[in-house]
Amino acid sequence: MKLVYKGKTKDVYDLEDGNYLLKFKDDVTGKDGVFDPGANTVGLTVEGMGKSGLKMTKFFFEKLKEKGIPTHYVDADIENSTMTVRPAKMFGNGIEVICRYRAVGSFLRRYGMYAEEGQKLDSFVEITLKDDEREDPPITEDALHMLGILSRDEYKILKERTVEISNIVKEELAKKGIELYDIKLEFGRVGDNDEIALIDEISGGNMRAYKDGQYIEPLELEKLMLEK
Amino acid sequence: MKLVYKGKTKDVYDLEDGNYLLKFKDDVTGKDGVFDPGANTVGLTVEGMGKSGLKMTKFFFEKLKEKGIPTHYVDADIENSTMTVRPAKMFGNGIEVICRYRAVGSFLRRYGMYAEEGQKLDSFVEITLKDDEREDPPITEDALHMLGILSRDEYKILKERTVEISNIVKEELAKKGIELYDIKLEFGRVGDNDEIALIDEISGGNMRAYKDGQYIEPLELEKLMLEK
Repeated sequence: MKLVYKGKTKDVYDLEDGNYLLKFKDDVTGKDGVFDPGANTVGLTVEGMGKSGLKMTKFFFEKLKEKGIPTHYVDADIENSTMTVRPAKMFGNGIEVICRYRAVGSFLRRYGMYAEEGQKLDSFVEITLKDDEREDPPITEDALHMLGILSRDEYKILKERTVEISNIVKEELAKKGIELYDIKLEFGRVGDNDEIALIDEISGGNMRAYKDGQYIEPLELEKLMLEK
Repeated sequence: MKLVYKGKTKDVYDLEDGNYLLKFKDDVTGKDGVFDPGANTVGLTVEGMGKSGLKMTKFFFEKLKEKGIPTHYVDADIENSTMTVRPAKMFGNGIEVICRYRAVGSFLRRYGMYAEEGQKLDSFVEITLKDDEREDPPITEDALHMLGILSRDEYKILKERTVEISNIVKEELAKKGIELYDIKLEFGRVGDNDEIALIDEISGGNMRAYKDGQYIEPLELEKLMLEK
């Protein structure tokens, strides 16, 4: 088993049977010790974070599987904080797809002239490039297509799947009285037919969830969602 | 004649006959005394700049009129550096439409991971919000529509007109051996039927033009284009 990539919150190992192993770490994105799901830097380390994120990811990826939505998920080993996944081809050097239900974060920083903080949005989809140096710039369908990152057909599927998946997460949270403000997803091309599949994770680390107007930290979110 | 708006490079007067008068000033956008067509601040004052910009604008707006492309232009008084225009309704608080033929400026700052400096682009259109405070953020068709700035039909027309107008400017420059790298246009809704029409100006102040690999300053560009 060979380490092929050291990420900010996960390490990736080559299982040499065609699949890969993701090791969920206790590192969390943020700045100056404060968690921020939109940040590009590791802000802090929280004990149990990796395991907690994996539990949530397992819960949601298995739910998506039931519904026939393609993901790279094979199985998860909570004890060892690892998840086995099928290999995925990236779009360019990676893109992030954000689905928004409330105007907060970078959306508000960009479009605050036209939106109130916390204003409801109707599963609004945005794409940003994974590019730390250029602070993850937002990108249009036209630019994605022109720069060879994504075809127009892929863009359409990506957007539809993003809304479908995000709505499922939103509904699951709503069952516990929690409101999803926004969520950041990653996709790749998986399998022989390069199917557009969800990759990476779904956890408190890549969403903003609120209960009674209060932001819920990832560890707390996992407890609210998964503990009996 | 009443001053209704003091802009960075133009003042606007209400002519009280239904039209408006634009007074072209000698102020130029840029930073620290250096001209930059993409900048949001007045960087320097150049004698003759207003008159020169108006000459170019008159030249291009009359060319567009010949071709039946709608603009807000009525006539120009070069002596007094003024242009009479029809009133236009803004899209939100104003948007800018950029057409790119080479990867430079803010395009390269955002997408430099995927584009070489100066790489050819095929009349690639981008829209940014006029919002100094938020540094003119780029915006997608979906966001423009959702925020009520532009309808989907208007977006389509805007994009088509942008390419059409930019290609005309590009061809005119090419006749003098000059290459257009990019151009920034403004549009509004003009007339009783809210027709999408070009507004503001077309001059060296809102484009990047190169000759033999050298950037051409606005005053020099006007001389090359309009002097016999």
